[in-house]
Amino acid sequence: MSSVWGRNLTVTVFGQSHAEAIGVVVDGLPAGLRIDTEELQAFLQRRAAGGPFATARKEPDVPEIVSGLVDGVTCGAPITALIRNTNVRSGDYSDLRDHPRPSHADYPASVRFDGANDIRGGGQFSGRLTAALCVAGGLCMQFLKTKGVAIGGHIASIGKIHDKAFDPVTVTADEFLTDAFPVRDNEAKTAMQELITVTRSEGDSVGGTIECAAVGLPAGVGDPLFDGLENRISSIVFGIPAVKGVEFGNGFAAAELTGSENNDAYYYAGDTVKTHTNRHGGILGGISTGMPLVLRVAIKPTPSIAKEQETVELSSKTGYTQQIKGRHDPCIVPRAVPCVEAALAIALADYLV
Amino acid sequence: MSSVWGRNLTVTVFGQSHAEAIGVVVDGLPAGLRIDTEELQAFLQRRAAGGPFATARKEPDVPEIVSGLVDGVTCGAPITALIRNTNVRSGDYSDLRDHPRPSHADYPASVRFDGANDIRGGGQFSGRLTAALCVAGGLCMQFLKTKGVAIGGHIASIGKIHDKAFDPVTVTADEFLTDAFPVRDNEAKTAMQELITVTRSEGDSVGGTIECAAVGLPAGVGDPLFDGLENRISSIVFGIPAVKGVEFGNGFAAAELTGSENNDAYYYAGDTVKTHTNRHGGILGGISTGMPLVLRVAIKPTPSIAKEQETVELSSKTGYTQQIKGRHDPCIVPRAVPCVEAALAIALADYLV
Amino acid sequence: MSSVWGRNLTVTVFGQSHAEAIGVVVDGLPAGLRIDTEELQAFLQRRAAGGPFATARKEPDVPEIVSGLVDGVTCGAPITALIRNTNVRSGDYSDLRDHPRPSHADYPASVRFDGANDIRGGGQFSGRLTAALCVAGGLCMQFLKTKGVAIGGHIASIGKIHDKAFDPVTVTADEFLTDAFPVRDNEAKTAMQELITVTRSEGDSVGGTIECAAVGLPAGVGDPLFDGLENRISSIVFGIPAVKGVEFGNGFAAAELTGSENNDAYYYAGDTVKTHTNRHGGILGGISTGMPLVLRVAIKPTPSIAKEQETVELSSKTGYTQQIKGRHDPCIVPRAVPCVEAALAIALADYLV
Amino acid sequence: MSSVWGRNLTVTVFGQSHAEAIGVVVDGLPAGLRIDTEELQAFLQRRAAGGPFATARKEPDVPEIVSGLVDGVTCGAPITALIRNTNVRSGDYSDLRDHPRPSHADYPASVRFDGANDIRGGGQFSGRLTAALCVAGGLCMQFLKTKGVAIGGHIASIGKIHDKAFDPVTVTADEFLTDAFPVRDNEAKTAMQELITVTRSEGDSVGGTIECAAVGLPAGVGDPLFDGLENRISSIVFGIPAVKGVEFGNGFAAAELTGSENNDAYYYAGDTVKTHTNRHGGILGGISTGMPLVLRVAIKPTPSIAKEQETVELSSKTGYTQQIKGRHDPCIVPRAVPCVEAALAIALADYLV
Repeated sequence: MSSVWGRNLTVTVFGQSHAEAIGVVVDGLPAGLRIDTEELQAFLQRRAAGGPFATARKEPDVPEIVSGLVDGVTCGAPITALIRNTNVRSGDYSDLRDHPRPSHADYPASVRFDGANDIRGGGQFSGRLTAALCVAGGLCMQFLKTKGVAIGGHIASIGKIHDKAFDPVTVTADEFLTDAFPVRDNEAKTAMQELITVTRSEGDSVGGTIECAAVGLPAGVGDPLFDGLENRISSIVFGIPAVKGVEFGNGFAAAELTGSENNDAYYYAGDTVKTHTNRHGGILGGISTGMPLVLRVAIKPTPSIAKEQETVELSSKTGYTQQIKGRHDPCIVPRAVPCVEAALAIALADYLV
Repeated sequence: MSSVWGRNLTVTVFGQSHAEAIGVVVDGLPAGLRIDTEELQAFLQRRAAGGPFATARKEPDVPEIVSGLVDGVTCGAPITALIRNTNVRSGDYSDLRDHPRPSHADYPASVRFDGANDIRGGGQFSGRLTAALCVAGGLCMQFLKTKGVAIGGHIASIGKIHDKAFDPVTVTADEFLTDAFPVRDNEAKTAMQELITVTRSEGDSVGGTIECAAVGLPAGVGDPLFDGLENRISSIVFGIPAVKGVEFGNGFAAAELTGSENNDAYYYAGDTVKTHTNRHGGILGGISTGMPLVLRVAIKPTPSIAKEQETVELSSKTGYTQQIKGRHDPCIVPRAVPCVEAALAIALADYLV
Repeated sequence: MSSVWGRNLTVTVFGQSHAEAIGVVVDGLPAGLRIDTEELQAFLQRRAAGGPFATARKEPDVPEIVSGLVDGVTCGAPITALIRNTNVRSGDYSDLRDHPRPSHADYPASVRFDGANDIRGGGQFSGRLTAALCVAGGLCMQFLKTKGVAIGGHIASIGKIHDKAFDPVTVTADEFLTDAFPVRDNEAKTAMQELITVTRSEGDSVGGTIECAAVGLPAGVGDPLFDGLENRISSIVFGIPAVKGVEFGNGFAAAELTGSENNDAYYYAGDTVKTHTNRHGGILGGISTGMPLVLRVAIKPTPSIAKEQETVELSSKTGYTQQIKGRHDPCIVPRAVPCVEAALAIALADYLV
Repeated sequence: MSSVWGRNLTVTVFGQSHAEAIGVVVDGLPAGLRIDTEELQAFLQRRAAGGPFATARKEPDVPEIVSGLVDGVTCGAPITALIRNTNVRSGDYSDLRDHPRPSHADYPASVRFDGANDIRGGGQFSGRLTAALCVAGGLCMQFLKTKGVAIGGHIASIGKIHDKAFDPVTVTADEFLTDAFPVRDNEAKTAMQELITVTRSEGDSVGGTIECAAVGLPAGVGDPLFDGLENRISSIVFGIPAVKGVEFGNGFAAAELTGSENNDAYYYAGDTVKTHTNRHGGILGGISTGMPLVLRVAIKPTPSIAKEQETVELSSKTGYTQQIKGRHDPCIVPRAVPCVEAALAIALADYLV
């Protein structure tokens, strides 16, 4: 079931980087929901390739919705979106099959699939599949809007340069950025872009973190034990390539604090129970508290770098010095922001449909 | 399905802190596996209450296995273990129901379950349920042993005091600790214990991190997208109360590195493909690489503290100053180590059964 | 996941005929539901052994509920019920292991579980486990009652003797029988009981069919394709040992009809859409129509018979003439009626929780 | 999850009768399997419209496989097949929305989806979606062939005219028919075709039954309780529109027999355990016995008939006399044969992948 996620709302992602198409089937959204395709397209655009800080591969990423809508309105049948892979460079990939790229999935995938895995452009493991995830996420966001829930994120850091974090108590949808390089602090933004430019010129790549928030989620959403918000959000977030960590609220920082430093005192704001601080990130016992849900995700530096690297030659069982050619992002973090938002939207929609 | 985890191996956890019993049903272990109950009991003992650094509540935690074994050998039917709650203090919990404890699940649980949630001792949200998780994990560890896989962990930090990390390349099962306070560096151990003693005396609690590793896992275990190792391990690890973050390999530290700093070069060790470094934590593309699987988990400080705290009175919709009484751990981290090991064991067993 | 059923409501059945206990974990019933244990016990009594038409093994079948209730009310945590196996005759089962009983699961189970399956009393395959199913079903019935849904059944036939069928249009809960031998037509009842008595005296057994109905189910419950009412009801009904067929509405009889004979015309009864006839059994396209849901289930004759039978000796790979000793039902059909009701209740509750 | 079926192998069906496309995503087939697209196409052809005994709507039913294959070989990524709906008559369906057709899903679907369901051509409930099911089934058959398992079926009856049944003991793949009207007995075939011709001329339709068998399945495949072969096969077979019953082996006939009449004696055929008779249909306790797996499925007469029928007008809450126009099959049974085969193939593949 590796390509299927969900319980009440199921998302089935398909495709490989160089297959005829990638796409997604979203089953379980309520019937009668009008889909704004322009809004969906604008969301996808944030992930799509383009700009000086991303790969040269340009895909239009215009999904064709082939089922599930009647006159733009959901009908209860699963929504299926297809994105054709138009800008596929054909070529000889036998070299790549014999020489797995360091820190890519090439080698474990080859063991897992007995050497039959699609090696072209990373196959099923390509970041390209996040376009499908974003279609599902974009649809879920439109559903969540009907429930008063909004989701947004920003680049929290690239390398050692940090953006200003959301205030976890007061953050609102108005603060959510929608540009292709979403950073809240302009100085940090400039520094990040310079770092990426330098890193690219050195034939290297750089990682970063993403902060994401959901506002408007009422208290009482979630479940104990294995179906808690953290369990389910993380189970989909790790489906985004390059994610190596996830934390909620204070996260790893909480490990250094005392209870009196980390606890959040309750109070009544009118009729509503709130907390003065939000170190818990809006989740306690797997269930929402009504405070903003806040998480951070660690994105490793893109393993595709231009620098020479040591790897192996599988056919001869010897060492091999490799130089990866072709297009690749020096920093995947900006494009990963809408992916994390999408994952969060899907996870929340699964509870609320 | 909040109490059921798994696909090929399912684990159903049940019980509340003050119910007649807690327990677990483990379905899917292969038939013909001899269960060593002493080994299982020794594993459970690591989690059980006791010692100067834990709560005063002492539970024997001796599971009664009521199904699934014939003469100590699995028969293919689900294994069910029951742990009676013997040391339950009865008392008046109406005060607690009206005054949710800060950073506990009391408030969101009360919204989720319309005020009918079992408030006694935290009910279903109590750390007590990890005893059931550990039974399942202990059984899975015995299964994993037949596959050559071993799992171990240690306290990586308490507060700001850090233990020596595993070497992610060379770590072996010989290094796994099995005492009730598993720390690799003796100086750090002493400092941690002193910190806990001081913290307790101040009526406070403290958090920490746990590092856990699996060795012997062959390359090729796992799946792309949503059924990757990271997805599934995190989806169960967050079932342990107080976990607020999880990271694999370099995790959040990778976000500050360049690709050339974070990539792991391949080489042949005899016939086996290995990496010189292991920043990827044994997982690429959701699939094992054959290197040790390494993860770290953030545990927040126990929210139960003796200090006075501000909360609300639900009945009157006013503020309320609360002082929590009764037994509680000043630091849950030592007891959480076997829980994380158990979660990892269950996740891996699900792939290997 | 063979022991776990369900999506929103999960039922985990455990135990073997001669294990320490059998039982069930029911997760997903809403919190705040008061459970009437006497009503539950009365329901279980219908399935329990006893009377002249059943096996001599008498089990009290009094479940101990060890979790999920606080003062008799559901708290949102899974409800776990345990039934001890008290009346277990110990003995030598090595004979049975070597000589699989015809039309029992002994042989395929021995292949499936490499000879480690629990052979005692049929192990996991014993009809005894339906006591656990009935606990879950009885709980679900109490939940369904709060939704206005009632479930009942009767023996539709034993051998060639048929009871009067429910009128699928007018059937109400008032017609549901709750005695241990539920037959609507008294003449048929007497004839059936005589047939069982004769069959038993001949060392043989006899099969039958069960008709079951749900009334009060509103229109619009169910889902297309794989989550239709028929899909999900059948997926649990076949979990009852000895079930070899299931049909809804006209079922197999519809195969002999024309569309004009089998279609059900709609009309308005006040504001409600109804059908004059109910050949569709209350389900169209997997979704309820608001008419009574009606199904029939085929129960094969108990394979345990006193007559000599031909089988094999696995150890010597030769033939073997077997005479099965011990207690067994000459006709399982009466006791299977509450089991089918329970299965139907669980299936419907999964949609309505 | 109504559109997703499966545990180890997942099948996600999407589309509506008049959507841009229908299709299917098949996830979990092993990598390295060469797909014979001609063989797949030939299988689909059996279901496709055509011939004097079917509807006039002619769809090419040529799936475009957009993912999962590299040079015709599975790569481990999900296989996605798309079938465009080319022969779609546009038109005014508002009449249909207000006047639900008797014994179609129109009315319950309209309640389930708040009137937003796709009414065009039956939408998601159309038999057209079985083309997608057949793609998945055809792929699974090619996988099963590598395991020595073959699946075949025939029209067992139309109206009261019965074909010669498979001999459940000796049936082999050689007997499996692949023509568009698969009947084993030529006299019965002629009579069935005459019956359909007459029925059509009367503006009516007629039902029937289908017998299906799997040969080559080894003993020991399946699971107890809820994951038995019967549970899982029925859970997918009922996804085929118009199926109202399913039975295995002797099925409902077993209900009239005694144990001594219905039991199957074991014997050794060389080293293999077999049964002289096969009333159990190759399944005991949910697990295969190594004998041919045999099931029968009841197909109701197509509800679309040309005769006038009574229904309701939803807008005015009054009665309405309806005459359904357009294309429809007088007998769906011939085209349903490959659908049942496909469902069986998918169910078995889920165990064997």
